[in-house]
Amino acid sequence: MSDHDVLVLRKGTHGIPVEEYADALRTRLPDSDVTLARTPEAEREEIEDARIVTGMVLDEELLDRAQNMELFACAYAGVGHLPLDRLREHGVTVTNASGVHGPNMGEHVLGNILTFTRRFNEGFRRQRRNEWRHYKAHELHDGTVTVVGLGAIGQAVVERLEGFDVETIGVRYTPEKGGPTDEVIGFDDDALHGALARTDYLVLACPLTDETRGLIGSEEFVTLPPEAVLVNVARGPVVDTDDLLTALRSGWIRGAALDVTDPEPLPRDHPLWDLGNVQITPHHAGHTPDYYERLADIVAGNVRQIAETGEYDGLENEVSL
Amino acid sequence: MSDHDVLVLRKGTHGIPVEEYADALRTRLPDSDVTLARTPEAEREEIEDARIVTGMVLDEELLDRAQNMELFACAYAGVGHLPLDRLREHGVTVTNASGVHGPNMGEHVLGNILTFTRRFNEGFRRQRRNEWRHYKAHELHDGTVTVVGLGAIGQAVVERLEGFDVETIGVRYTPEKGGPTDEVIGFDDDALHGALARTDYLVLACPLTDETRGLIGSEEFVTLPPEAVLVNVARGPVVDTDDLLTALRSGWIRGAALDVTDPEPLPRDHPLWDLGNVQITPHHAGHTPDYYERLADIVAGNVRQIAETGEYDGLENEVSL
Repeated sequence: MSDHDVLVLRKGTHGIPVEEYADALRTRLPDSDVTLARTPEAEREEIEDARIVTGMVLDEELLDRAQNMELFACAYAGVGHLPLDRLREHGVTVTNASGVHGPNMGEHVLGNILTFTRRFNEGFRRQRRNEWRHYKAHELHDGTVTVVGLGAIGQAVVERLEGFDVETIGVRYTPEKGGPTDEVIGFDDDALHGALARTDYLVLACPLTDETRGLIGSEEFVTLPPEAVLVNVARGPVVDTDDLLTALRSGWIRGAALDVTDPEPLPRDHPLWDLGNVQITPHHAGHTPDYYERLADIVAGNVRQIAETGEYDGLENEVSL
Repeated sequence: MSDHDVLVLRKGTHGIPVEEYADALRTRLPDSDVTLARTPEAEREEIEDARIVTGMVLDEELLDRAQNMELFACAYAGVGHLPLDRLREHGVTVTNASGVHGPNMGEHVLGNILTFTRRFNEGFRRQRRNEWRHYKAHELHDGTVTVVGLGAIGQAVVERLEGFDVETIGVRYTPEKGGPTDEVIGFDDDALHGALARTDYLVLACPLTDETRGLIGSEEFVTLPPEAVLVNVARGPVVDTDDLLTALRSGWIRGAALDVTDPEPLPRDHPLWDLGNVQITPHHAGHTPDYYERLADIVAGNVRQIAETGEYDGLENEVSL
């Protein structure tokens, strides 16, 4: 393998054959050899010479063999599953897939919001009964949407709210950075509750951290207006599930769209399944048919930069280890 | 009744008590008397002196008694149900509620589009079975949305597509007028089929006219890509229902969101109910809890203008009779 060749490991994602990822890289890198290691044996062999490796996962056994690896281009946005300490010891640069999910997560969240605005869940129920009968809708126009987390996903949500004439409030660790929302506040209790009190749609798009674990519980559901809808595309434990059940059953809030749950997967007998005011999707907001295309844009751009500069610094989406 | 008093007839709409419409007018017109005629008898009596009358409907018997009426502010966007010839003979100015539906229709259409993009219908099916299992989604980003009709509703749809990074094509009678879409074309066959061939979402938001009756039939479904989704919030007969059934059953298109149907209401045993790739809502896109508020904005604005100028010309939403 030459310096700018790329090894693709065998695990795919999103139900799309990993061959499509390799092909997307080949299209963008006509001067590099892109090798797809389709079996564990091929992975073990090929990784020994590879400088640039990309894949969803990397176990320690493979890492031990990767004596020439300079860059591991992780194909997920999160890298918590990687042996990061060992990668640092080996001096390997790591990049992630951050930003790849923006469009589809934004579309998913707007779809959730509009499903509750237009009460499509009620529509689906009537349709199942062949019942042509009116029902009332809500309206998003002039409402307030609060987005917790203003990373790539939160930003994608706010961009897509542009044409809907709503007030937006962003919640982030560093409110002094500002953001794309009409207002930006921090995580302190008074500011957060002040926002919740006037929120129609509460979108959770933050990472799971010590600060955000259990962020939304009884106290927050009490402050939210009874017409408010929760949309969680972050991580299940950002919301206290028992408190959410109480809020949904007692009408403290109008409903919830949950792409992530705690526990996850949601067990078959979990009471959340049966509530008519909940929309559950199976950690599906991240799915996009264009995943490999957008990922390949990032990784190929970095490979070209390495080919030009000979350096593994300053790459797009570099993760600080 | 003085010249700038308003008579509100008894028929309400959208399942909201008509008292709320009268109250919305009173709030906006503190110097006018706003009378709500809550019974047929009250309507017959009050209309004799009224100069400004507003309501959903107006029958000929009432019109005969309305010897002083100068303005009938129709509370619907369409006025085809009114005795227009007689109103013209009587020299009555007529205004409509055009524009009132923009936000909610726009939200409904975007909700339809995103429901098919994220395949929420499949999600609801799995949720009903307590089944946590992934499925593939589509993506709106970089797609093409064609909007037939660039009136208030078509424009509201296009505005709301702003943040989604899509190509938009508008279809209107007078393409030389331009419009808010990336491209504007007319209704001639070659231009229309050229647009259909690259359309991912086809939104019908046009009035029903001789030109648009049966506009979308077999030929058009053949030209649309198999991934295309039809969204009809116009009128049922703009689409040929038998051809639509064939297209949906044979996979000529991916699906359809129908807020209007032909026949309408859709009979209980109609095959459209049972297709998994159809979303049916019961002529519901026009519903908004803010209907009377926005309608009162238009009507009160006109009443104030009449009070200032003494004229019944140049009013907002005047209908040419």
